[in-house]
Amino acid sequence: MKKTSYQILFMLFAAYFLQFPMAFSQSTAAVAEDEDAFFIRKIYDKGLTESRCYGWLTALCTQIGGRLAGSPEATKAEAWAKQTLEAAGFQARFQDCQVPHWVRGAKEVVRGVNSKILGKQPLRALALGGSVATIPSGLTAEVIEVKSLDEVDALGEKVKGKIVFYNRPMDKTPINTFFAYGKAGDQRRNGASRAAKYGALGVVVRALTTEIDDRPHTGSMYYDDKYPKIPAVAIATLDAENLSKALKTEGTVKLFMKTNCQNLPDMPGRNVIAEIRGSEFPNEVILVGGHLDSWDVAQGAHDDGAGSVQAMEVLNLLTISGYKPKRTIRCVLFANEENGLRGGLKYAEEALKTQEKHIAAIESDAGGFTPRGFSFEGDSSNFKTVFKKVTPFQNLLEPYGLTFSVGGSGADITPLKPQKTLLIGLRPDSQRYFDFHHTTADRIEYVNKRELELGAAAMASLVFLLDKYGL
Amino acid sequence: MKKTSYQILFMLFAAYFLQFPMAFSQSTAAVAEDEDAFFIRKIYDKGLTESRCYGWLTALCTQIGGRLAGSPEATKAEAWAKQTLEAAGFQARFQDCQVPHWVRGAKEVVRGVNSKILGKQPLRALALGGSVATIPSGLTAEVIEVKSLDEVDALGEKVKGKIVFYNRPMDKTPINTFFAYGKAGDQRRNGASRAAKYGALGVVVRALTTEIDDRPHTGSMYYDDKYPKIPAVAIATLDAENLSKALKTEGTVKLFMKTNCQNLPDMPGRNVIAEIRGSEFPNEVILVGGHLDSWDVAQGAHDDGAGSVQAMEVLNLLTISGYKPKRTIRCVLFANEENGLRGGLKYAEEALKTQEKHIAAIESDAGGFTPRGFSFEGDSSNFKTVFKKVTPFQNLLEPYGLTFSVGGSGADITPLKPQKTLLIGLRPDSQRYFDFHHTTADRIEYVNKRELELGAAAMASLVFLLDKYGL
Repeated sequence: MKKTSYQILFMLFAAYFLQFPMAFSQSTAAVAEDEDAFFIRKIYDKGLTESRCYGWLTALCTQIGGRLAGSPEATKAEAWAKQTLEAAGFQARFQDCQVPHWVRGAKEVVRGVNSKILGKQPLRALALGGSVATIPSGLTAEVIEVKSLDEVDALGEKVKGKIVFYNRPMDKTPINTFFAYGKAGDQRRNGASRAAKYGALGVVVRALTTEIDDRPHTGSMYYDDKYPKIPAVAIATLDAENLSKALKTEGTVKLFMKTNCQNLPDMPGRNVIAEIRGSEFPNEVILVGGHLDSWDVAQGAHDDGAGSVQAMEVLNLLTISGYKPKRTIRCVLFANEENGLRGGLKYAEEALKTQEKHIAAIESDAGGFTPRGFSFEGDSSNFKTVFKKVTPFQNLLEPYGLTFSVGGSGADITPLKPQKTLLIGLRPDSQRYFDFHHTTADRIEYVNKRELELGAAAMASLVFLLDKYGL
Repeated sequence: MKKTSYQILFMLFAAYFLQFPMAFSQSTAAVAEDEDAFFIRKIYDKGLTESRCYGWLTALCTQIGGRLAGSPEATKAEAWAKQTLEAAGFQARFQDCQVPHWVRGAKEVVRGVNSKILGKQPLRALALGGSVATIPSGLTAEVIEVKSLDEVDALGEKVKGKIVFYNRPMDKTPINTFFAYGKAGDQRRNGASRAAKYGALGVVVRALTTEIDDRPHTGSMYYDDKYPKIPAVAIATLDAENLSKALKTEGTVKLFMKTNCQNLPDMPGRNVIAEIRGSEFPNEVILVGGHLDSWDVAQGAHDDGAGSVQAMEVLNLLTISGYKPKRTIRCVLFANEENGLRGGLKYAEEALKTQEKHIAAIESDAGGFTPRGFSFEGDSSNFKTVFKKVTPFQNLLEPYGLTFSVGGSGADITPLKPQKTLLIGLRPDSQRYFDFHHTTADRIEYVNKRELELGAAAMASLVFLLDKYGL
């Protein structure tokens, strides 16, 4: 054990200070590994000096901005992406689908009624995506605080006629913030129907972030058709803390809440697809993707403009590095990840109909931060076998700070799982993600150019290895 | 090899998704490793929920701000740190030293003279620390662009009477940006005297950052006493690009340059020291440190307020985690790292006089970003032996994304090297550091709370292991 650790340490030393992958002399395929190491270094050199992804992301964020499925901005973004891919030298096409069409309407209002602690200032609130509106005159009701869906079940009829306030904070202790997000998210996604089951009139959900700040975080919520549809909003953690304090201090607290959202008929949406055709096995596809849609209130810089431009950049980086893939490398910018996943479902459905074999799919949808590695999942019938094949690639990517793990990949590509595709998620550093996620602060100024570029280079390097060696 | 890789992957899987260090059943000391893993998890839990370092950094940055050696703000910061450590329950003291006293004076001016491309707007400039002033009426001279000190040697007398413009960009390709900084820094540090050797009147240096932006970066420069002292300024990379373009297009370009700095007599400065006394081996010291001084124009948030509050936090985290160290854990906030290293030199000098054995010293001085690992160096007589002893600790820190490497530690602790101290640098993610380094943008709003806290927890965890097992 000690000897191995020592070897790894000296590899890390060399990688860190010499900034160059060294020969892996212990390898049985040392020459090929050397060649691969040099080519990956070339991809990174190009990726840090000639990358176009930050410029693309700036254009997408500032010229188009928020682009929720069904919105005119989503249509604009689709056209922009197709045109940008074409201008970069790739044939691009649309793949049509139908997407939900939810609109926020006029600014939502949530405020205390005769509460000294809450005062007259409205709470910083955002209606959750999919929520119905209140009646036009708004809703006024007493608030009852809970920490979980189970607590609502336990309270039962006591929530009747009330606004249920879900206030379980995101756990700060997991190093990977997505883990805490996963554990706290049920309040936002399913809180409304659980409360409606017992006659609640509306729900207010503490924003999903570990910090105490003034940003409400929107996000999708779903109704269970068995129960009445009641309005749902998220409030900033600062306001959640304050509301909780008002309840403790004042005993009874009433909120006025008015949302103006509408669920309209489905609209046309489009996946945007471009590819480099494989020279030897054109019917074997390696997919790289992100989702082009974002929440309405954000620029969608990290979520998921970053992943979209990184996927586009993979095609560009392989091309300017002079790589001619044997397999088809396909960039897919999915429609409607945020509130429907219709783009991902449509893509998988169409993929079933063709003769193409999707050997692997990589999604970047965890922000444009410094990449820390990749996580892998797949169909239980072949996952162990294919994962074993990619495991040795980790040696070549370690000098770039990347490690492999088993875990979730990306929402848009999971519908490919039954096709036995190896599903891969880019895993960037997760510390800052929930400062911005689904808020008005998810803007280009919070994306660092080098961090974004490193993500694209990481994906391009893995695609290169997958293409060269197959699965 | 494959089996080991596979084992590592599953450890990473567990760490990433279960967020908990798993038992290392293959270890011969499995029980101790389990205990250690649990205790490190406790340190991290405390570090992410009860940490005080972000609040401390906010106070330091906003209530005191820039604190160059010899300034009233440096004195204020020293008093603040001592008081804050005392309020946190630790005995604190000053260690006096003498520090250089350089003042910037009135805002420096650098602008083109009759250049269409440069126009009438002043270039975004900052005098380099240590630079002399121009004569009060300023200096006007023709500009000659070079890419290196060697090029000045080659030009020789051709630079006479001119302003030498050092314009070699920082290399974007190293993953670790400090590597590129190291390679580009000679222009800033030694460019003036090299140019003065051949009769140049002043130097303008391209700011040390990989990006093209509007921020001039100051930093220290040194004169060779053999040559006349000529004024030196840094200009933003955008202005460097523009000046280079003007030279190419217009042939001859003159700059007007006026700096108002002064090198005054040395002033008193202080290292701030607090410690937890060891219960078994009080004369064995494990040092954790950062430097409290910063450049005048910055808040010194990343450089090195972050390292200072992290070092303070190590004492706090060990205490609130209930750990009673066997050895003395000493927090040292060094004076005058930026332009003299007098605090570090003084500390090592005093340490020689005492009977205390400094077994290890850890410095954080690379920004308050997500920690990626530690780098180790030491005296050649014992380094291999002690490094081998700490190597196994890496297993316990890997779940937190930390790896070990051999390399530089921190400027303030290197004077301890002859005392055979194991010298350790915290290595945070380096991608964003040079966006802020030595600029007015090095402010608290660019420090992420969780990233800062993780650095403190990483240091506290390593200190715990060093203390428990010794060296």
